[in-house]
Amino acid sequence: MNSTPQGAPARLLVIGADAAGMSAAHQALRTARTLGVELEVVALEASAHTSYSACGIPYVASGEVGEVTRLVARTAEQHRAAGIDLRTGVRVTRLDLASHTVETESLDGTRGTLAFDHVMVATGAAPVTPAWALHDGHLLDGVRHAKTLDDAAAWAAALEPGQRAVVAGGGYIGVEMAEAALRRGLQVTMLTRSRVLSSFSAETTARVAAALRAAGVDLREHSEVRGLAHEDGRVTGVVLDDATVAADHVVLAIGVVPATGFIDDETLLHGRRRALHPDAFGRIDAADQSGIAWSAGDCCEVIAESGHRTFAPLGTHANKAGRQAGENIVRSIAGLEPVARFPGALGTSITRFAHGDVHVEIARTGILDAQLSDAAADLAWDAVFLTTEGTTATGYMPEARPIAVRVGADRTTRRLLSVEIVGGQGAGKRIDTAAAVLHFGGTVDDLAWMDLAYAPPVATAWEIVQIAARRLAERL
Amino acid sequence: MNSTPQGAPARLLVIGADAAGMSAAHQALRTARTLGVELEVVALEASAHTSYSACGIPYVASGEVGEVTRLVARTAEQHRAAGIDLRTGVRVTRLDLASHTVETESLDGTRGTLAFDHVMVATGAAPVTPAWALHDGHLLDGVRHAKTLDDAAAWAAALEPGQRAVVAGGGYIGVEMAEAALRRGLQVTMLTRSRVLSSFSAETTARVAAALRAAGVDLREHSEVRGLAHEDGRVTGVVLDDATVAADHVVLAIGVVPATGFIDDETLLHGRRRALHPDAFGRIDAADQSGIAWSAGDCCEVIAESGHRTFAPLGTHANKAGRQAGENIVRSIAGLEPVARFPGALGTSITRFAHGDVHVEIARTGILDAQLSDAAADLAWDAVFLTTEGTTATGYMPEARPIAVRVGADRTTRRLLSVEIVGGQGAGKRIDTAAAVLHFGGTVDDLAWMDLAYAPPVATAWEIVQIAARRLAERL
Repeated sequence: MNSTPQGAPARLLVIGADAAGMSAAHQALRTARTLGVELEVVALEASAHTSYSACGIPYVASGEVGEVTRLVARTAEQHRAAGIDLRTGVRVTRLDLASHTVETESLDGTRGTLAFDHVMVATGAAPVTPAWALHDGHLLDGVRHAKTLDDAAAWAAALEPGQRAVVAGGGYIGVEMAEAALRRGLQVTMLTRSRVLSSFSAETTARVAAALRAAGVDLREHSEVRGLAHEDGRVTGVVLDDATVAADHVVLAIGVVPATGFIDDETLLHGRRRALHPDAFGRIDAADQSGIAWSAGDCCEVIAESGHRTFAPLGTHANKAGRQAGENIVRSIAGLEPVARFPGALGTSITRFAHGDVHVEIARTGILDAQLSDAAADLAWDAVFLTTEGTTATGYMPEARPIAVRVGADRTTRRLLSVEIVGGQGAGKRIDTAAAVLHFGGTVDDLAWMDLAYAPPVATAWEIVQIAARRLAERL
Repeated sequence: MNSTPQGAPARLLVIGADAAGMSAAHQALRTARTLGVELEVVALEASAHTSYSACGIPYVASGEVGEVTRLVARTAEQHRAAGIDLRTGVRVTRLDLASHTVETESLDGTRGTLAFDHVMVATGAAPVTPAWALHDGHLLDGVRHAKTLDDAAAWAAALEPGQRAVVAGGGYIGVEMAEAALRRGLQVTMLTRSRVLSSFSAETTARVAAALRAAGVDLREHSEVRGLAHEDGRVTGVVLDDATVAADHVVLAIGVVPATGFIDDETLLHGRRRALHPDAFGRIDAADQSGIAWSAGDCCEVIAESGHRTFAPLGTHANKAGRQAGENIVRSIAGLEPVARFPGALGTSITRFAHGDVHVEIARTGILDAQLSDAAADLAWDAVFLTTEGTTATGYMPEARPIAVRVGADRTTRRLLSVEIVGGQGAGKRIDTAAAVLHFGGTVDDLAWMDLAYAPPVATAWEIVQIAARRLAERL
């Protein structure tokens, strides 16, 4: 497999120096040391930044995080000091697996080619720019995504009290950017094509919508944007079918797509998203078992524990799958079988929306109502859902906050299918308990009856997640 | 089995009207309705109070909960309205299973007997009163437990700013009462015979000790109390080997023992605690399978999921095992097989200590170092422990608080054995995720790699519990 001359170290080329790529790079070096494999790791990063927390951008925008550099978990220098030949400002324009090369373009326009023995594709995802947002092919002043560190710095500098922000998109980033704008004293309108957080059930979404509105967000669900009003190259409003919403700023938070434009090998790309499909070990060329090409992170559709492919662009998966790929790349060089450590996605995610007196934590895991129509056909689930309201702490404690827990289970097998949580401080991370039950394929009875922790400031004697599971169990 | 005349309803006698007893009573009525069983439920309660949260007493003492009645989840009237023949102020002085009767004594000294078809023993636990605390067989003024609603009201009324409180005992109640006294403005000394929270590892305990001291508690571990100083019938100090600690109040929080003094059938009582040993269904007369006698709650040693018996006097078990017993009692009347819903204890528990700038949540699950010497002999575990420090939220977020996670696993099977957590707000309930892994007999790899929730205000991208598990996994 190793195409380098005898004795020369194998070269691992990592494309993209963020969560998945750098997790893979560092793990590859660790595994190489452990196994005594000679390895050279070259990493190419199109931007000037490495290993930054995209999830932290709203908190830079809000002013809670004062310095955008605080989002950088590891700088380019730190990566280099650890032995990675990191080259920033270098974009890969084409991947050629057959010749084991990539074509590159630097910021100054210099083109080149680079050879590799193994390649780790970790280019992540690119934010969607809807046609209505473009003016002569460019974004107007005041219109921006919230995806890069430059975006973070720009939003931090731009948001001024009394201005009007329109957030286009009601996913996690949209909700978090709405919070940021509120905290900066702006008037905030949120536009969503369907519901806010539409991957959740309508019932859960309604609770989130109520929280957004209670905090002052002018939430307009089922809104279709037709274009932007502008003056002197700067946005002044967002045009809907029946109104124009005045806007000093427009946050584009429509979603992301895999950044795979540099790949022209159609056998590697899947579905309408043109996503990579790494196998359980991280290989994207699993068909020929060559172990040359690997991938992880937001450029991929990940394998869910249920066996389905899902597009879940989250740092958690990127870190885990990236780390695993790094180990397996070196194991393949050493002629060892790959290991499957990351068992796959469960659909677990969380966010928080907090402004003034409003604080809600919103979390989910498993296959929710919205996705069930697809999944159920394959898996023959007879899904039943029930929402239960309770408190995060014992009712007599000042810490008690409302929480609603929606549990889904299969009527026949009693298997837990999903949990959604909306509630006050301390509510959200309870989702991990449900995720653990899903990981083991447990039932709603497992969740209801196992021995969880109780003390008045942090729970009820029957933990609310367990009450919710028990109530559903009694109805199956 | 049913000894009542043909057509008369079976009489279930519940002894003790708190968590286990009333959970059983109400579930028995529900199951009776479902199965069409004629059932009379009589409940005897020695005190005037029913279904109160003993765990809430420190928060009444601290003044956070203004009314002691707020600790009552269900009043006697509410139980009666639900169809339970509840008689308060009636103590059971003897249980006679052979004749299906109990002997009783009322507050006014009236004695009587009461017949039953089935009996649910739910008398809970009694607080330990050490010999040094007794003065002529009585407690001095200023010396009290923290076990009953009367205790709660008395502490709430007694604690005055500037006074000196000595807490004897370093378990959960001791820690929580120390917090209460601090919050009321008292100077607090805590005396423990071994370490504070001695069921935790020494390393975890040291973190708790540091937090107590940072909040102003004069913690004296490994202190043996020799007696009390007093004046005019009121305590003035606690006498140690080498000093006398001045005290206006002494909180007795030494522990509890099963309240089984009214049982003289030695075949029902087990171990030095004279605890009841209900089987997986709740029966304490399992030997003859008669289904006459049942029990749950703090008068029992519960079956751990590991198969061992353990004394874990906690409301969570009492509620779950009580509810299950109530169902099984009626199923046995109906001639149905009993169901095992409560899978047993995992050793999960939690508390919080918070005063001023100090806020620590302390939680555990599984078999910790301290218990391992007993358990390991049977189970042949080669246990390895490792503590990992991190944060509850991403480091750049204002919500980030320190957290330390100690994970134990078996070297050979990689099976997760235990987790301990000490950390700031949001740290503690993470223990439930580990408890779920224990419930399914999962490995440290399961805990490390499964798909848990991440967002900057509530977690790190690699959740700290997973980092802790992964670090240990890499060392096995």
